[in-house]
Amino acid sequence: MKKPRILIIGGGYGGLRASITLQRMLKEDQADVTLISKHDYHYQTTLLHKVAVGTLGDRKARIFFRKVLDPNKVKFVKDKIIRIIPEENKVEGNGGFYPYDYLVIALGFKPDNFGIKGVNEYAYKLSSLNSALKLARNIEYKFKEFVHTKDIFDLHFVVCGTGFTGIEFAAELAVEFKELCLICDIDISIPKIICVGRSEEILPIFPRHLSQLARKKMEALGVEFVCGGSVKECLENGVLVDIKGEEKFIQANTVLWATGVKGSDVIEKGNIPHKKGRIPVSPELRCKEFENVFVIGDSALATSRDVIHAPTAQLSAQMGDYIGETLVRLLNKRSALPAFKFIHRGTVCSIGHTDGVGVIYGKGVKGEVAAFMKNTIENKWLFGIGGFSMVFKKGQFRYRTSN
Amino acid sequence: MKKPRILIIGGGYGGLRASITLQRMLKEDQADVTLISKHDYHYQTTLLHKVAVGTLGDRKARIFFRKVLDPNKVKFVKDKIIRIIPEENKVEGNGGFYPYDYLVIALGFKPDNFGIKGVNEYAYKLSSLNSALKLARNIEYKFKEFVHTKDIFDLHFVVCGTGFTGIEFAAELAVEFKELCLICDIDISIPKIICVGRSEEILPIFPRHLSQLARKKMEALGVEFVCGGSVKECLENGVLVDIKGEEKFIQANTVLWATGVKGSDVIEKGNIPHKKGRIPVSPELRCKEFENVFVIGDSALATSRDVIHAPTAQLSAQMGDYIGETLVRLLNKRSALPAFKFIHRGTVCSIGHTDGVGVIYGKGVKGEVAAFMKNTIENKWLFGIGGFSMVFKKGQFRYRTSN
Repeated sequence: MKKPRILIIGGGYGGLRASITLQRMLKEDQADVTLISKHDYHYQTTLLHKVAVGTLGDRKARIFFRKVLDPNKVKFVKDKIIRIIPEENKVEGNGGFYPYDYLVIALGFKPDNFGIKGVNEYAYKLSSLNSALKLARNIEYKFKEFVHTKDIFDLHFVVCGTGFTGIEFAAELAVEFKELCLICDIDISIPKIICVGRSEEILPIFPRHLSQLARKKMEALGVEFVCGGSVKECLENGVLVDIKGEEKFIQANTVLWATGVKGSDVIEKGNIPHKKGRIPVSPELRCKEFENVFVIGDSALATSRDVIHAPTAQLSAQMGDYIGETLVRLLNKRSALPAFKFIHRGTVCSIGHTDGVGVIYGKGVKGEVAAFMKNTIENKWLFGIGGFSMVFKKGQFRYRTSN
Repeated sequence: MKKPRILIIGGGYGGLRASITLQRMLKEDQADVTLISKHDYHYQTTLLHKVAVGTLGDRKARIFFRKVLDPNKVKFVKDKIIRIIPEENKVEGNGGFYPYDYLVIALGFKPDNFGIKGVNEYAYKLSSLNSALKLARNIEYKFKEFVHTKDIFDLHFVVCGTGFTGIEFAAELAVEFKELCLICDIDISIPKIICVGRSEEILPIFPRHLSQLARKKMEALGVEFVCGGSVKECLENGVLVDIKGEEKFIQANTVLWATGVKGSDVIEKGNIPHKKGRIPVSPELRCKEFENVFVIGDSALATSRDVIHAPTAQLSAQMGDYIGETLVRLLNKRSALPAFKFIHRGTVCSIGHTDGVGVIYGKGVKGEVAAFMKNTIENKWLFGIGGFSMVFKKGQFRYRTSN
């Protein structure tokens, strides 16, 4: 009898959890499980702001798939998926076609430029490890060369977006200014961060008092805010912002675009019905048109999702676990799981290494406790992937160890 | 009264220790002390083999001068020295002239190509953090691209030199092969290291039984040796070796040149009498021609040096301390120190992370004990520079934390 072929495309939080769950719960030879990813490593999207500032080394940020997957149970293939052909039960990558009996789509997100001019050309993004490293090199270069350039706008940074990504990056960089100025012999009053957001409060997913607390903490770090402003255009040396009908140019030679995300290109350009690269799914996370196709993480347009408003790492991981178990039950001909239900454990926004604000099991947390909880969340993820030794090697602790 | 100007050129083990000693022992305003280095960071030369293999991140390997020097006591200037003009009591850098009353020359080493063809063009070196990073990128690239190139010689490495640098690098890389092959899905039998040395024993500074033990440990890691062979020419794809009169071509697309070092270019091209970039010094480490010029580390041709045959980090550091104290006594008009005497605490050659051989206070050590002592030596240096917090941040411990 032919073994069923399970194909997982994408190795982010969702795809990796699905793979690990299958690896743990399936017997050897029960199925051919393959994970395909364009990188041979997984990285924690929730830590990219640290990579971008340079406080987390790229080696520590990478988890190589072949180190956590047992090839006898889950085969890893490095390839970039270019097309999904669900009518023929196969996907196409640069390396050829991959047929499947069951497909798990976990292709992740990409930054949404909302059609705004100049974003693709001039703004940095935090969408992958490589994009974060590019920004890190830029920051280091700008500080190191300041002795020659003397251009203060080389040390001005505009962050577009006052959600999680923007705020965590801005805080991390603001804390690091002290270090960078010391190393490069620059007056600490020169570098500057301006965060531009459309909503009146930063971190709008939080209750108002936490948003305001976060803003106060950020301002104490010297970060400036332009709230209720929408970016009209992104240029090489700044952004043009519309603030309640008035145009303002904010000058800065580095712009980070962190306003929001959409689903994958592959889905956006494909034939499966979607909304901005996200596929509508049933409560069991199945693609409505194709019974044997499951969709998780940022690839899924779940109705419950809109209620959650949370950063999606946690959601993606839970979806991955759910689909892993669903597939095991399918192969074992056991009854299906009840509909997927997200358990919202909590959300913490870090503000540098030792501060933060957040909500854990519905309760507000702040300060060192929040920073500790943030690390705990990251380390819990590592533990789920590779046990204690993974936490030890890649974990986040109170003190930075990278420089 | 004008304050005496003390100028230290070079921020390696010797120059940094001299600076730190002056910082600790001089009263504020007692002298104008300036350290000039072409990098704004110090790095531990004894750890470059780890950087080159990729097991130590570049951030962890760097110690920024401005983080350990108090600008009220020791001013740091980033500049590349191009000329020493002792007749006029000044040195020239790319940024201009620096006058001094007392000069400390601590310009370090550079690899000696012994006039052999192709070394400059084709061989990697471990002479600076940047050169080590270049080699690290090459190794990563060769492994990652092997899936496309399929050229086994991309995974063959020739190490020229069987002294400390060559052996520590070869061992570190041999241990890392397991990891690299796993990550890149390469058969572990493909990569290969061949060490070529002129002497019959590897690590000739050790007693014979330790050299032989080291070789046995290295061979257990799969490293091959060509002893008693001298390299005639270095090519893009290997080296031509003369083994007792017979020529042999060893094919490998990466060649590391680690056969020996000489003094700095600046000294070699300058007017002060020298031997291969090293200046003969008095027992008090003074330049014989110029009373107010002191020479330490690899810039010094000390007669006692030839007896020691040890890697010079330890020697350089002790010379730095000695000169720092000498200058403090000079300024305080106290009696001079007795002649410099090197206290040889010990020397350990690491073989990967958990093994090694060495001599500590005249006693042979091996295995885990040697590895532990090696880390202790590195951490002691960090402690001397920045106390416990520096050891915590940059220290070497039993387990790797970098990837």
